[in-house]
Amino acid sequence: METRFNSLHFLNAQAEYTAASLVLLGCPFDGTSSYQPGSRFAPNAIREASWALESYSPKLNRDLSEINFCDLGDLELPFGNTQRALALIEQTIDHLLNEHKVPITLGGEHLISLPIIKAVKKYYPELMVIHLDAHADLRDEYLGEQLSHGTVMRRVLEFVEGSHLIQIGIRSGTREEFLLARKIGCQYKAWPSDLEIIKQKINGHPIYLSLDLDILDPAVLPDTGTPEPGGLTFDQVIEILSTFQAAEVVGMDVVELLPQPPHQVSSIVAAKIIREALLLYFSSSSP
Amino acid sequence: METRFNSLHFLNAQAEYTAASLVLLGCPFDGTSSYQPGSRFAPNAIREASWALESYSPKLNRDLSEINFCDLGDLELPFGNTQRALALIEQTIDHLLNEHKVPITLGGEHLISLPIIKAVKKYYPELMVIHLDAHADLRDEYLGEQLSHGTVMRRVLEFVEGSHLIQIGIRSGTREEFLLARKIGCQYKAWPSDLEIIKQKINGHPIYLSLDLDILDPAVLPDTGTPEPGGLTFDQVIEILSTFQAAEVVGMDVVELLPQPPHQVSSIVAAKIIREALLLYFSSSSP
Amino acid sequence: METRFNSLHFLNAQAEYTAASLVLLGCPFDGTSSYQPGSRFAPNAIREASWALESYSPKLNRDLSEINFCDLGDLELPFGNTQRALALIEQTIDHLLNEHKVPITLGGEHLISLPIIKAVKKYYPELMVIHLDAHADLRDEYLGEQLSHGTVMRRVLEFVEGSHLIQIGIRSGTREEFLLARKIGCQYKAWPSDLEIIKQKINGHPIYLSLDLDILDPAVLPDTGTPEPGGLTFDQVIEILSTFQAAEVVGMDVVELLPQPPHQVSSIVAAKIIREALLLYFSSSSP
Amino acid sequence: METRFNSLHFLNAQAEYTAASLVLLGCPFDGTSSYQPGSRFAPNAIREASWALESYSPKLNRDLSEINFCDLGDLELPFGNTQRALALIEQTIDHLLNEHKVPITLGGEHLISLPIIKAVKKYYPELMVIHLDAHADLRDEYLGEQLSHGTVMRRVLEFVEGSHLIQIGIRSGTREEFLLARKIGCQYKAWPSDLEIIKQKINGHPIYLSLDLDILDPAVLPDTGTPEPGGLTFDQVIEILSTFQAAEVVGMDVVELLPQPPHQVSSIVAAKIIREALLLYFSSSSP
Amino acid sequence: METRFNSLHFLNAQAEYTAASLVLLGCPFDGTSSYQPGSRFAPNAIREASWALESYSPKLNRDLSEINFCDLGDLELPFGNTQRALALIEQTIDHLLNEHKVPITLGGEHLISLPIIKAVKKYYPELMVIHLDAHADLRDEYLGEQLSHGTVMRRVLEFVEGSHLIQIGIRSGTREEFLLARKIGCQYKAWPSDLEIIKQKINGHPIYLSLDLDILDPAVLPDTGTPEPGGLTFDQVIEILSTFQAAEVVGMDVVELLPQPPHQVSSIVAAKIIREALLLYFSSSSP
Amino acid sequence: METRFNSLHFLNAQAEYTAASLVLLGCPFDGTSSYQPGSRFAPNAIREASWALESYSPKLNRDLSEINFCDLGDLELPFGNTQRALALIEQTIDHLLNEHKVPITLGGEHLISLPIIKAVKKYYPELMVIHLDAHADLRDEYLGEQLSHGTVMRRVLEFVEGSHLIQIGIRSGTREEFLLARKIGCQYKAWPSDLEIIKQKINGHPIYLSLDLDILDPAVLPDTGTPEPGGLTFDQVIEILSTFQAAEVVGMDVVELLPQPPHQVSSIVAAKIIREALLLYFSSSSP
Repeated sequence: METRFNSLHFLNAQAEYTAASLVLLGCPFDGTSSYQPGSRFAPNAIREASWALESYSPKLNRDLSEINFCDLGDLELPFGNTQRALALIEQTIDHLLNEHKVPITLGGEHLISLPIIKAVKKYYPELMVIHLDAHADLRDEYLGEQLSHGTVMRRVLEFVEGSHLIQIGIRSGTREEFLLARKIGCQYKAWPSDLEIIKQKINGHPIYLSLDLDILDPAVLPDTGTPEPGGLTFDQVIEILSTFQAAEVVGMDVVELLPQPPHQVSSIVAAKIIREALLLYFSSSSP
Repeated sequence: METRFNSLHFLNAQAEYTAASLVLLGCPFDGTSSYQPGSRFAPNAIREASWALESYSPKLNRDLSEINFCDLGDLELPFGNTQRALALIEQTIDHLLNEHKVPITLGGEHLISLPIIKAVKKYYPELMVIHLDAHADLRDEYLGEQLSHGTVMRRVLEFVEGSHLIQIGIRSGTREEFLLARKIGCQYKAWPSDLEIIKQKINGHPIYLSLDLDILDPAVLPDTGTPEPGGLTFDQVIEILSTFQAAEVVGMDVVELLPQPPHQVSSIVAAKIIREALLLYFSSSSP
Repeated sequence: METRFNSLHFLNAQAEYTAASLVLLGCPFDGTSSYQPGSRFAPNAIREASWALESYSPKLNRDLSEINFCDLGDLELPFGNTQRALALIEQTIDHLLNEHKVPITLGGEHLISLPIIKAVKKYYPELMVIHLDAHADLRDEYLGEQLSHGTVMRRVLEFVEGSHLIQIGIRSGTREEFLLARKIGCQYKAWPSDLEIIKQKINGHPIYLSLDLDILDPAVLPDTGTPEPGGLTFDQVIEILSTFQAAEVVGMDVVELLPQPPHQVSSIVAAKIIREALLLYFSSSSP
Repeated sequence: METRFNSLHFLNAQAEYTAASLVLLGCPFDGTSSYQPGSRFAPNAIREASWALESYSPKLNRDLSEINFCDLGDLELPFGNTQRALALIEQTIDHLLNEHKVPITLGGEHLISLPIIKAVKKYYPELMVIHLDAHADLRDEYLGEQLSHGTVMRRVLEFVEGSHLIQIGIRSGTREEFLLARKIGCQYKAWPSDLEIIKQKINGHPIYLSLDLDILDPAVLPDTGTPEPGGLTFDQVIEILSTFQAAEVVGMDVVELLPQPPHQVSSIVAAKIIREALLLYFSSSSP
Repeated sequence: METRFNSLHFLNAQAEYTAASLVLLGCPFDGTSSYQPGSRFAPNAIREASWALESYSPKLNRDLSEINFCDLGDLELPFGNTQRALALIEQTIDHLLNEHKVPITLGGEHLISLPIIKAVKKYYPELMVIHLDAHADLRDEYLGEQLSHGTVMRRVLEFVEGSHLIQIGIRSGTREEFLLARKIGCQYKAWPSDLEIIKQKINGHPIYLSLDLDILDPAVLPDTGTPEPGGLTFDQVIEILSTFQAAEVVGMDVVELLPQPPHQVSSIVAAKIIREALLLYFSSSSP
Repeated sequence: METRFNSLHFLNAQAEYTAASLVLLGCPFDGTSSYQPGSRFAPNAIREASWALESYSPKLNRDLSEINFCDLGDLELPFGNTQRALALIEQTIDHLLNEHKVPITLGGEHLISLPIIKAVKKYYPELMVIHLDAHADLRDEYLGEQLSHGTVMRRVLEFVEGSHLIQIGIRSGTREEFLLARKIGCQYKAWPSDLEIIKQKINGHPIYLSLDLDILDPAVLPDTGTPEPGGLTFDQVIEILSTFQAAEVVGMDVVELLPQPPHQVSSIVAAKIIREALLLYFSSSSP
């Protein structure tokens, strides 16, 4: 047996940066979390949890070993300065896109999607944003703040047209948010019929996937900032992700995991969703 | 931004007592808990957890802001004297009913329902008791005690006729308890057909709802005194509660939450069930 | 009230050893656990959790009081010497079988099934092994080791023919493991149609049940060594166990519970599964 | 290696009841606990924790193997009926004393000392009670109840003279309790000079030791019902216990451990104190 | 027994605002916490923990019932906007001082002391600031931010002269921070001789006490944002606080508690320190 | 602000391997842990915890930035095969020594010290072993096993003379172990006089430090495999380590941390001890 040293990284993410077309990075920011902070610890929790899994997916008959990707570790971000943290994230994602990488970002809270989508939109003007979440995140402000995990998609609507936003799984919000969503017509159910409509709609567009893990029922994923009872099953989320299998996914984030030891189930669920997404979108092998 | 101070109370429960027709109160009693004590901590845990939720229910298109209700805090109860604690609860509920309030009580363990139903029955002789639970609670005694969370509905049957008791969700008990329930004919399943029969049966009667949270599957609500695998989903419980939407609900209790940090999911589930129940039964707005 | 002292044992397991045809024993071995150790604590956790349950099953209309069985406590095993621990387990099970007992073993990790099945096979050469699990456990080695929780069924295949192994619930493994399973034709789904085929196949054979609790979805049973999202419900596992109701069950193990306080739900799920299995296979009363 | 099965018991407590002059028993009663319930789980937690220790004390140069004692397990007690629980404890201790056993009782809460001391006093009229605690426990009532963990020594004073009560370590109580204690002159510090005075005072009297573990600083023993900062070190408690080395100890209780996983340190501290006490008072070997 | 309802508040803090000269308030801000967030939950944790204590201090022979003070609850603060949160705190404290109240503030993180001291300094130009802490908090910036829990005393030095700052307990910082402190001459040990010097120095000055709970050794108070081994005992901190018994204390904050269930010991330690401080500085009764 | 990515490593351990004279590595082996497994998680827990600390030690007036050292991550070890794991560790340490590195190893359990000391002894025949521990670890076998955390120093005595072993802090063991230790004369107290004798004894010898963290009192470091009440303070351990300041330290291990979330205090204590040791032995700057 040869001597091998392990450092903490996501399962199989061992390519060199230059060789990787896909890069994982952590954005440990939870500065606007209102109910419970702590999603800053999610990236490392997901990395650790990924080792409970095999690299092979029997469902997809694909293996992570078929994908060249690397794990950059966590971006160093300031504490207590939302604006500067967002600017730093935007600049980082811009840099990665400029080097032709597809960024897979591990939050952190949902507000990190704002600077990421801003950067991605610059490179892909026809971008459609797929927002999977329990909460509408369409408030105009939260306790007087315009930059908040509860306002992130409202801010995105300032540079992405309503017709280019697709929300799935939403089951919580204010009356105003639901009125706005109805006006825009952006909300869909996780039903096969709705998924079929969505598939049509995104036809040909590059897409960005923003996955707030609280879309899952808290029974499946209890460790999240604001758990909302009555959510989706693990299989339903995989089903939704499969909808975009043929699309051009140009970026993705997985946010709002709030690791709460001793249980690691939520982190493992997050890691398995990421594994399946990577295999669905970025494996060149035929399933 | 104006200066605002928050004290711990259930979401939106900020009416003055005199203006409120609906009052929330905590009964932090867990003196007969046999497997695990600690439901005394449930009322404050539910209050804290309620802040993870919006006051608006997209499902019902109603908002708690439309209801005038107040939160009295927790009743001060002695420790180690079951009889006196129950007497104090009965006297309190009697007082509230006398002032034309509808009491929504947060347990504590299930035995608190006994004095509450006693008081309510005095004001509403035609009362039907709806008992949602995993356990039959029909033992005559438990380790020699007649006053116990495991005997509460047997005691209720001493002043409420068997035909006025409806049990839903029961999946645990002794052989004797199930024989008694069959004799009385009080047990129903959570199936639509059964719910339809129940709806007919309660027609015109004032009803009291006693909800033991362990009716839910432990996957959905793990934090309860005696979790019983194989229970209902969150949606099923909401479906059951919707059955009584048109009925005259004159009181309700939500019992047997046993908060176990760090996870707050069970408390949030309890809080959301309470929110939906309040909106279902006490909002004047049309859905 | 008479004075009674309680020592820790599984619900109703109070027969004398000589009078019992059925014996429970704990094998607190977790020496090859790779992701998280701690299943050594499972037997006592299951014993404690069993007291949250009634001895009566309303579903089966049977009561544990109808079965004569005893709880031997935990086998004392060395730490750090896998070979010797396995030898000791094999010798113990051999001894029990020799005295005409049916062994119900509480793990510990899955590798304990290897010596148990070896001993049982000696007494029942026509034995069929039913393997309920999320993981195939068919690796030839794990990090260079041939004796591992991840190789246990591969080792079993060295003395049990492929046609006498039935795997249900498998959803994780390497590509090689799935190729091997396909070659042998040993994997089945939890669907009614598959269960029907299995029933045919085991016709007349004595069977040994090896139940890795991670077959359950982590929402139902989060406390296990390597939780694998996307698993079975509690009712599905009971359904699978019912398939073997008419068979001759000559031994059973329940492995890979990893108790993680403060929640006891997983241990209660394990205890209830054991209760239902005992009532299904060993109660003489007609249901 | 021979096959050995372990059941849960305190380290080395394996004598037959008839052969043992010393008996351990658990009294899992916490019915009047006001701040936090759960001391009912202490006896088994102490038993489990005892296995982290050696049976040999290097400090005393004695070994538990030199003492014949047995562990009866836990007394079965009703829930929700303080009077009956106390009566049952008194009757049990009376029975043990009648059979010439020295009872070492594991609580449970402090109120269990009341029936124990009552029974012991009957057999040893000259009894002196040594009360080690952070709290005076001299209230006349607590929230209207005369039977409470906060009133236990006041009740003891109804049948034990003030001159026969010795309190050590008290650092919390109401003004009234401290006035009463001063009047009786029962309180001592843990200083060598005070311990010397106590040694004189107990000269020739049989003594009963009631040890509330919260006498220890919460840094040393955090898991207790009402932790009181500013307490004693582990070495100080051992020093106090050594004071009674030459006395005739006719009974002892160790109460108010409230096990809070995952840490077992408090339970191990309790177990080590018990080991040292047993070796100090009941080992016949010369140190 | 009369019916009494309890809402969550600090022990005995039940005076009306207008009647109270002393007000408690929570500032649940943890926006710049770098290692672990969560001190926002401290105020309610301290309130709950305070009920484990008596209102009477045997050490001081004083009782909280002798002080008129009220508990305002928690200030509502925005998330993700440090500047606005600080402005709101400053404005609130200014308002309280204007109404002649002495503010006792429960953090939250240490940065909240900045706006409080700013406001207090306006009313008391001769103010001396007593800073009890493990960390110097004298960095000029932390990860590029000037407003941080790690820079708070450096910011205070911008409007309080170095000669008016007294630091006690400091045992962590950068070389630069210690060089600065040496230059100013602001650091003292917890030795009696140093405390005597401090007593002389503050002679006649109004003082503000800023107590970062991590001054305590993590054995005594483990629940804090950045625990630093090698700290003070509980008795030493009480000793330090006693130093200021004769001084005019015009405000105080207790910060950096980070409640981590299930243990409540840290919160109880915080509550007891607050009780002793209130009795030391604000009770009119002679000890 | 420039973009920086962080991967998990010990504070300041960022030198290139070739440039570093000092290397940190994790040996996540806990295969013979008898009471509680889980020390395999210690190395990463220490790395994470190290970020709660400054790199500067005010006590020593030295900074980690003055030392060139690297963190290799964790050695990959098999599960369930003690012999092979130990061989792999020995071979790794041998390789590092061959490349003139000083190995600082993070356990894992104490048995890892055996292969490390074996390798070091080969390069430094005059080696003296300093063993800091609560337990003697001098058993000849444990449950029949010769390779165990409880036998490690007995095994070391097979190739290191008794006169070259120095044990400090031992307070637990069997009578036989203490008899053996007395015979060899290897045990010392943490008193200044004993430390002075030790300093004389090691004069000129290269030393290897094996630090079992349970030497600390469980109040200071609760998270360890077998906590033993009555241990040393943090300052005492630092004092002991300072004894060897002038010696040639050719290797060191820190073992038996068993991280138990949510508290990180134990891991921080471990990290601070490592920081102080590195600064004491390997910083070239004058204090």
